[in-house]
Amino acid sequence: MSFQRSIYLTTIPIPEAVAKARQALDRDALVLRETIPSHEAVGRVTAAPVYSRYSSPTHHSAAMDGVAVNAETTFTAREGRPLELKLDTEYRPVNTGHAMPEGTNAVIMIEQVVQVDEQTITIEAPAFPWQHVRRIGEDIVATELLLPQNHQITPYDVGALLSAGMWEIEVWEKIRIAIIPTGDEVLDFTTRPEPRPGQVVESNSQVFKALAESWGCVVQRVPPVRDELDALASAVDEALDDAHIVVIGAGSSAGSKDFTRTVMEHAGSVLVHGIAAMPGKPSLLGEARGRLLVGAPGYPVSAVICFEELVRPLASWLGRRDPGSRTRIKVELTRKAPSKLGVQEFMRLAIGRVGEKWVATPLARGAGMITTLTKAQGIARIPMHSEGVEAGAMVEAELLAPEAELERTIVSVGSHDNTLDLLTNELMGLAEPYRLASTHVGSMGGLTALRNGAAHFAGCHLFDPETDDYNFPFLAKYLPGLDLLVINLAIRHQGLIVAKGNPKNIRGVEDLARPDLTFINRQRGAGTRILLDHHLKQAGIASDTVNGYEKEEYTHMAVAVNVLSGAADCGLGIFAAARALNLDFVPLARERYDLIIPAQWADDSKITTVLDLIRSEGLQARIRALGGYDTDLTGKEMSPRMGLGRA
Amino acid sequence: MSFQRSIYLTTIPIPEAVAKARQALDRDALVLRETIPSHEAVGRVTAAPVYSRYSSPTHHSAAMDGVAVNAETTFTAREGRPLELKLDTEYRPVNTGHAMPEGTNAVIMIEQVVQVDEQTITIEAPAFPWQHVRRIGEDIVATELLLPQNHQITPYDVGALLSAGMWEIEVWEKIRIAIIPTGDEVLDFTTRPEPRPGQVVESNSQVFKALAESWGCVVQRVPPVRDELDALASAVDEALDDAHIVVIGAGSSAGSKDFTRTVMEHAGSVLVHGIAAMPGKPSLLGEARGRLLVGAPGYPVSAVICFEELVRPLASWLGRRDPGSRTRIKVELTRKAPSKLGVQEFMRLAIGRVGEKWVATPLARGAGMITTLTKAQGIARIPMHSEGVEAGAMVEAELLAPEAELERTIVSVGSHDNTLDLLTNELMGLAEPYRLASTHVGSMGGLTALRNGAAHFAGCHLFDPETDDYNFPFLAKYLPGLDLLVINLAIRHQGLIVAKGNPKNIRGVEDLARPDLTFINRQRGAGTRILLDHHLKQAGIASDTVNGYEKEEYTHMAVAVNVLSGAADCGLGIFAAARALNLDFVPLARERYDLIIPAQWADDSKITTVLDLIRSEGLQARIRALGGYDTDLTGKEMSPRMGLGRA
Repeated sequence: MSFQRSIYLTTIPIPEAVAKARQALDRDALVLRETIPSHEAVGRVTAAPVYSRYSSPTHHSAAMDGVAVNAETTFTAREGRPLELKLDTEYRPVNTGHAMPEGTNAVIMIEQVVQVDEQTITIEAPAFPWQHVRRIGEDIVATELLLPQNHQITPYDVGALLSAGMWEIEVWEKIRIAIIPTGDEVLDFTTRPEPRPGQVVESNSQVFKALAESWGCVVQRVPPVRDELDALASAVDEALDDAHIVVIGAGSSAGSKDFTRTVMEHAGSVLVHGIAAMPGKPSLLGEARGRLLVGAPGYPVSAVICFEELVRPLASWLGRRDPGSRTRIKVELTRKAPSKLGVQEFMRLAIGRVGEKWVATPLARGAGMITTLTKAQGIARIPMHSEGVEAGAMVEAELLAPEAELERTIVSVGSHDNTLDLLTNELMGLAEPYRLASTHVGSMGGLTALRNGAAHFAGCHLFDPETDDYNFPFLAKYLPGLDLLVINLAIRHQGLIVAKGNPKNIRGVEDLARPDLTFINRQRGAGTRILLDHHLKQAGIASDTVNGYEKEEYTHMAVAVNVLSGAADCGLGIFAAARALNLDFVPLARERYDLIIPAQWADDSKITTVLDLIRSEGLQARIRALGGYDTDLTGKEMSPRMGLGRA
Repeated sequence: MSFQRSIYLTTIPIPEAVAKARQALDRDALVLRETIPSHEAVGRVTAAPVYSRYSSPTHHSAAMDGVAVNAETTFTAREGRPLELKLDTEYRPVNTGHAMPEGTNAVIMIEQVVQVDEQTITIEAPAFPWQHVRRIGEDIVATELLLPQNHQITPYDVGALLSAGMWEIEVWEKIRIAIIPTGDEVLDFTTRPEPRPGQVVESNSQVFKALAESWGCVVQRVPPVRDELDALASAVDEALDDAHIVVIGAGSSAGSKDFTRTVMEHAGSVLVHGIAAMPGKPSLLGEARGRLLVGAPGYPVSAVICFEELVRPLASWLGRRDPGSRTRIKVELTRKAPSKLGVQEFMRLAIGRVGEKWVATPLARGAGMITTLTKAQGIARIPMHSEGVEAGAMVEAELLAPEAELERTIVSVGSHDNTLDLLTNELMGLAEPYRLASTHVGSMGGLTALRNGAAHFAGCHLFDPETDDYNFPFLAKYLPGLDLLVINLAIRHQGLIVAKGNPKNIRGVEDLARPDLTFINRQRGAGTRILLDHHLKQAGIASDTVNGYEKEEYTHMAVAVNVLSGAADCGLGIFAAARALNLDFVPLARERYDLIIPAQWADDSKITTVLDLIRSEGLQARIRALGGYDTDLTGKEMSPRMGLGRA
């Protein structure tokens, strides 16, 4: 093999890429008009101005239930001097919507009428002309402009169209997008595959489909095409017969089997290769037979950026739709976020409101992590000319969730524990649900977040060997003067997570100095790491004699994954993580996992809801069912020197 | 007939009405779970927590295109001291996504590799362990909580679900809404009817359908049911077999044929009759067979309020969805808006941004006017305890259009002319479209709006008899010191709009004093009214001798409608209005219709776009094609004392 592969050298900013594609396409030639029934036209875009056929109302009509009269015959009526009116000659009963009978021009409300006999009523106030009458054309006048061209039809418009007698209207056809996933390593999800090493389940096409349908497009996806030039070329050619936009999934980076660029060049021409964005850089745009070609990167987040930032504005432009925009709010960053000069970076954020301020914690930046999008409540764009943003800075976030939902989001920053996932799920089951957005930065990171007012609570399990106590010594040291409530969530078992069957026969902390073992550690500041150091010290083992002590992971699950994959022989973590991956567990200690809550939120419904839930027998039973937990203290308020039980 | 009809006496606030219905329904019994394919699950709501089956990636894999190595074998590589590596034994080529070959733990990017021969490469920097490697579970760890219960699935979630091997998920069934339009006077739009007096085309059901589908519901509509108790009762009974919510359209006010309440009482029970809202007051809520019954008012705006404020939160609650909320912004009211104590009023607003501020003009309040919703960009809620809002006050508006669209909205307040509709349509046809939100309050009203900074321009045709000039004398008097640009839009013909064939043989203004004629006037401040007064004075006719001089309308079209309907024999207006309704026209005068533009907006792209359009031959030809217009001055800047032509 050789490394002479197509390497994109220059990237261009997103707006430039979009402009290039617009310039290369003639949308008037590409997108046609069609006539459809008005009542099925919601979300469609008018291709011509719509003028009304009927007026609404079509005739003068009663606006109230009551009696229709000629106003002039009522002018003598006064309070205390009732005026008699006779049926048919002087009044006619009408209901709302009835046509005004000949010779009448006012309606008297039923409440102001006294029935004397079958033929006679009295009134005690005069009617003025046109009172409670809807006049012809009050709402819509025949021939007037009802909707301009290129207007996206709302539910309300449908009502106006039908009232105006417009049974059909001319709209732009829907933009048709064909999606062609590619790659030998890609498995078709419709076959429900079991991926082997190097294989991935193709999912981007379905993300594209869901996104594009929400933009009013029609999406056709073909089964994945193998990495063969001819196969891809003919799939593209076939797709071009019908679609306005053909998207080739993956294969746009510089890999040896990336034929997308070549196929584009054969079918038509490449307009853009590489955008100054991260993720999303290896995006391709091209043109063939008057249609748009897109080469979407393979990593899920890159693919989404390519689709939302390039395909969305272009599809909207073709379909004459407003591309839409997300709600923007200013948020305070809880952590520093470095960024690369020369590219616009799309930073995914966990966002919530803590007191009066919106706080945002940057999520992981990997382009391969779709969960950074599923967990994010917003996205910030770090501009090309910036090297990053400092902690505490205000940035503009585009919201991925409705603002009202964010108002009901509880922000937790701190140590990770599986009971938090339980809590997350249970909070969503309440009649008035709450979202728990928890970011995992270790116990010490949680305390920092509390000090900065960036969280409603922090999950914390910091053991202090000197006092044999949990959390309080650290609170006194790092959060002096802050009024805090400490509530136990669970007592959990920590131990050494080892491979199934414990093949290396690991018995306890004293084995960690064995030269044949590789350990995987937790990050500095993590309660689990402090616990490890305590046990190492008690066992008289120097940390530099532990193989892998310097390799850090941020969650219990990540530690377990290292053991599962053989990257490490053991690591300290909780029982739940070992069980989740079907690993074995050598118990070492029990520890308290507490929620540290600033007292100022104690009466906030977010916190009272969490506490009510923690104190419910239902949740406690579910915690115990996880295994590796005791709930003797769960929901109880902790105080200094309690340790693992009441004194 | 008798007037002993069901009159609702007490109304309750909307949140109370919603709470009553929630209390009466058992959603756990009513709404069931179903299992559906994950890739079709966007917008659905999880009915159980979703735990991942697969990890993602499923195995360690290359994160870059390049070569996989064991990091330890590369530690001696330095710049200027290249290290040779041999194929298969020391390096293996990999593409992004490939599984890491046995014994390798790092990837060196292709750009940092030099190919020496088929078997050999050199590198000039060491690799560190796990560099450019995606480790197993980096994105998703098998068994971890992927989505909590009652979570609405996003496009991104679909990607995560498929990556995690979750081909199917359990969701809540969609909420099924049955809609039963009622009323003898109601015509089925599917029959493409021609309404006779007292008849209306049924359209609310389609507005409901469009709204409910956008909330994720399924809607079934039956053809309109006649006003017969048994027919309605059996339609409701049948609908209750399947639907979670049954909506009976119209028939909920106190009219003699309103059976909705009675039918509800027979089928189950009435929970709420009357809400403290305007429009929307005569809404009904009930319960039958564990399902929700809704009686929706007949007027379109009332119907929408009932549906959005009662049905939406209840359907969302049943389906465990976030009810969503509109973007809110603070807007400055351009006009006073009185409101009734004791009801929450939903005021429709035309909204745009003029300079730095958002301005909003209240639209007509009639519950029968669907166009107040189609023309509105927002809605404000005037609270129950308020008697209204003063001009200039700031109110909170809920946006009906995306904020970005409002940024591209041109605000025009002033006299109405049909050429503005032409302009509206043409602006929407541009590559970068603009919306024209024009509110019609007469020429003087337009000047007031300019004085308050509440419009980008005002359409104005104020004739000053003393100087025989247009607009400038009024600008000098009412907007002294304001730097203004005056651009002519068209010269238009004003004349007497008379019935087809001119049956009353009206020849000119001198006929207006005839006792057998009824006139319809324009409102005070309207340029057309000033023109009329000038001609009356010249003809020596006192205004109090003109029958109907005191009856005012606000637009040319409304004047024409009065003539068409026989409410008046003639009125002064423009030719276009007469032609639109197929009426005859007795020409009286030509007048200048100018756009008055504050100079501060002259370079704003909104205004330059309008001016470019006005100056285009295309638009001018379309203006002439309307009839009744000359375009000799169109697009030209006017100066004082020009009158109808250049001096």
